[in-house]
Amino acid sequence: MQLYSFFNSSTSYRVRIALALKGLEVDYHGVNLRAGEQRQPQHRELSPIGGVPVLVRDDGLSLTQSLAIIDYLDALYPQAPLLPAEPLARARVLEAAQLIACDIHPLNNVRVLGYLQQVLEVAPEEKDRWYAHWVAEGLTALEVLLQRHGQGPYCFGDKPTVADCCLVPQVANAERLGCDLQAYPQVMAVYQHCLAQPAFQLAAPGRQPDFIQ
Amino acid sequence: MQLYSFFNSSTSYRVRIALALKGLEVDYHGVNLRAGEQRQPQHRELSPIGGVPVLVRDDGLSLTQSLAIIDYLDALYPQAPLLPAEPLARARVLEAAQLIACDIHPLNNVRVLGYLQQVLEVAPEEKDRWYAHWVAEGLTALEVLLQRHGQGPYCFGDKPTVADCCLVPQVANAERLGCDLQAYPQVMAVYQHCLAQPAFQLAAPGRQPDFIQ
Repeated sequence: MQLYSFFNSSTSYRVRIALALKGLEVDYHGVNLRAGEQRQPQHRELSPIGGVPVLVRDDGLSLTQSLAIIDYLDALYPQAPLLPAEPLARARVLEAAQLIACDIHPLNNVRVLGYLQQVLEVAPEEKDRWYAHWVAEGLTALEVLLQRHGQGPYCFGDKPTVADCCLVPQVANAERLGCDLQAYPQVMAVYQHCLAQPAFQLAAPGRQPDFIQ
Repeated sequence: MQLYSFFNSSTSYRVRIALALKGLEVDYHGVNLRAGEQRQPQHRELSPIGGVPVLVRDDGLSLTQSLAIIDYLDALYPQAPLLPAEPLARARVLEAAQLIACDIHPLNNVRVLGYLQQVLEVAPEEKDRWYAHWVAEGLTALEVLLQRHGQGPYCFGDKPTVADCCLVPQVANAERLGCDLQAYPQVMAVYQHCLAQPAFQLAAPGRQPDFIQ
């Protein structure tokens, strides 16, 4: 399999964590989002929306959307399952994952920040305020969900799930952008626990072939 | 079960479609997003992010995030399954659903449009341009996915899936906001087919108890 990824794309990072947790190796192709490579016609063949990650199977079929890719990997490679089997436990994991994937990340990704700057001509400090606002709204809610339903050391117990695959890249991004994360102790405890695990380390931005300082 | 919903919230509409396809009845509670009821403390008890839909079980447990709710309903009520069993077919359905749920809807929901107007003080025509921009980017990609992998009359064959649960509310919103939808013939054919089905009609905004003209 091949993975089209950008080292500090958080959705790519989610899939890299899932692959590492399952012990799967892929051919890695860097797509430089800063240089706009995701909008090139040959990349749009793989990803019509012009994004990463893209998983390409050995028969050439390509699949987009990080959570669809992770669900697919989980179906095909059942080792280290990323979703519990019991319906309510599964729902809690998906609730946390979708909260990050729908209510935080889409507002703060490259194309949206680009639109704010280039089309709406928003000042840099207003763009940072936008970023911090959605991170704070989302992580406040995630903290409540984890405090209510989670139990460490991962989001939901002693095995990593797709919720952890989403949490780590989101918190890493927020940290990189200088957001204040003190108000989310359980989120941060999960984050620190994950960062200490080899699979999460393998998937980290700094370990990718397309890493740029 | 109880459903907290707003008649023209597209994420609530997704869950209403899933319930109707499965023939499930729920107690309906309207949450008036225009009046800000979703931000009231008692609603935040049910939904920490302050949103709809929320499914509340008979034992009082609440579950948020439309796609987590639909997955949960699909696990508990296997009639009219909303996800295929075969991994690649399942991945295609989730790819389309997540494209709508992550790449279109979050940019155009009430809280984001509110931020654009109230905090960034964007002019009404700029706000409409923002809305239309993300709809066009997303539906262009969805059209490619459906043309490549779909086959009518639903998104992916002769049975409705969670992709259809997402497509119909998204197109309905885009239509309501006056977006030009001519460039998406397969998306629109699926939409028209769904609108003719009784379950989709039952779930429509105009049929909900909290409908406001």
